[in-house]
Amino acid sequence: MERAWRGFAIVYASKNNIAERLCEEMKKREVPCSLFSYKEADFENIWKCYDGIIFTMALSGAVRTVCKYAQSKDKDPAVIAIDDEGKFVIPILGAHWGANEYAEEIARLLGSTPVITTASELSNITSVEEFAKLINCKILNVENVVKVTSALLRGEEVCVKGLKALPKVKGKYKIGDDCKYFVIIGENQGNNDNAVYLRPLKLSIGIGSKIETDERTIEEAILFALNKINADITQVEVISSVREKVRKVAEKLGVKFRLLSLDEVNSFKDECLSPQSEKLKELGIRNVAEACALISAGKNAKLILRKIPYKGEVTVSIASIGD
Amino acid sequence: MERAWRGFAIVYASKNNIAERLCEEMKKREVPCSLFSYKEADFENIWKCYDGIIFTMALSGAVRTVCKYAQSKDKDPAVIAIDDEGKFVIPILGAHWGANEYAEEIARLLGSTPVITTASELSNITSVEEFAKLINCKILNVENVVKVTSALLRGEEVCVKGLKALPKVKGKYKIGDDCKYFVIIGENQGNNDNAVYLRPLKLSIGIGSKIETDERTIEEAILFALNKINADITQVEVISSVREKVRKVAEKLGVKFRLLSLDEVNSFKDECLSPQSEKLKELGIRNVAEACALISAGKNAKLILRKIPYKGEVTVSIASIGD
Repeated sequence: MERAWRGFAIVYASKNNIAERLCEEMKKREVPCSLFSYKEADFENIWKCYDGIIFTMALSGAVRTVCKYAQSKDKDPAVIAIDDEGKFVIPILGAHWGANEYAEEIARLLGSTPVITTASELSNITSVEEFAKLINCKILNVENVVKVTSALLRGEEVCVKGLKALPKVKGKYKIGDDCKYFVIIGENQGNNDNAVYLRPLKLSIGIGSKIETDERTIEEAILFALNKINADITQVEVISSVREKVRKVAEKLGVKFRLLSLDEVNSFKDECLSPQSEKLKELGIRNVAEACALISAGKNAKLILRKIPYKGEVTVSIASIGD
Repeated sequence: MERAWRGFAIVYASKNNIAERLCEEMKKREVPCSLFSYKEADFENIWKCYDGIIFTMALSGAVRTVCKYAQSKDKDPAVIAIDDEGKFVIPILGAHWGANEYAEEIARLLGSTPVITTASELSNITSVEEFAKLINCKILNVENVVKVTSALLRGEEVCVKGLKALPKVKGKYKIGDDCKYFVIIGENQGNNDNAVYLRPLKLSIGIGSKIETDERTIEEAILFALNKINADITQVEVISSVREKVRKVAEKLGVKFRLLSLDEVNSFKDECLSPQSEKLKELGIRNVAEACALISAGKNAKLILRKIPYKGEVTVSIASIGD
């Protein structure tokens, strides 16, 4: 997949064939996804816990559900509806926060028509919101977002400060200093009226692995996961695991390590943990990676990459550390 | 157009070209429509006053607006979104209350793709809700609607009682008595658990005409309007106008006539009156037909056919009389 997908909830109503097919396709691409039946889904929880929600059902049902939980552009997840026959993939919310791109990719996977309804000029640029998400930053002054995005729409240059290299973006972003409009990455918000200030999220990584997995594979898995979300090891504050050997990997990467006991992990409850599949439940395998990431991230943690497998030996999850 | 359209509100956001084109096309087909700019629109009013709302803007904007006003399946108007480029026509609410058919017709008019997301088997039948709307009836026991619609979906026959002939419907409706499931039209609700009971709406017709228009043209206009909504003259309780000559037409049709003064009409205020176009305002032409229909329908009246012109000489509007 072209961009990092951090985890989808797929909610099916009467038929689950499209939902299951899509989740399979996503898993092949190491995109975390959780399947929910509409009747059993706890939407309050899903709304809070996932950065993308896909409804496979009639649009009106999806919209009436959205209406119960939608808050505002900057808080809601990307929401997409797919009809039961998989003919259309329709971004409902968050078009400029990735829903359009997600919908286009899903439509390619399923052979469907992506129903993109936002002005086409908008699809020629990466909005500032999406830029922030791409580089794992929090927007400190949402009020300037429209101004800077509008500059991009007019074809003006926007200078990015505080990054060494740009992620893959559309629009005239550039690393530099000689623009009227700016995106500035740093710890604090400045007072340039033509700038959007972004603060990098601090990250907590959780690792699950087999006993026999070697350190090198674990290190690869960590870098693989960071790469998925365009993040850098310098953003990582802590790596946690129930395996002592992960300490050496953390030391090598220059990051603090926290050893957790299996008891701590097993007794940890968080509504945002991905539900375990029946198969994993039967095998008695717990969601170690996500639990580790969340425990060490502390209060107000948020899963930004749900557990992904690496070479069938390691699972990695990444949480952001709350303010 | 294949079916009666009783009046649309078309709400445009940044661009009005699709909205205006659509309204023109509708007017050519005597389909009433009112244009509103998103910024100036009083949505509370529009929600209450129109049985169809079309947003020409990005889907997410339409959905966030829908979320503010949507109440329930049986109360909300049909809602459709069309993107600014007119590529997609997307039923958002009321798929089984006509939104799908509306969207398909609009897509044909504009050369767009209709984005129908409800299960295809549902499009092979006319739901009981739509049936009731088609024949201008109120559903007395909403709780049995799903049961009878499900029978139609299974291909079972549904007997219709209290109608001489069926309107154009899909599914195994038939006039008769030998079914397990029923749609029964009458004044009161009975106690058959497998029946949906419908009460015919009583109608009030308002007429505007030129001074010189002859009675015959007025009579034609009334029958033309009733035919548009599949209604019968026997449902009409009153015909009103500021023209005395309409009395003769009403007498011929066997309906009570009410003469209104121009003062009454001019001083009548109702939030659901269609907004006048600038052109009509300049000409000093008031919305006589709708005002007449509403005044005589009394409290809880509802416009079910907004004013339509007939031969450039008569305007007719139909309101339902409240309980």
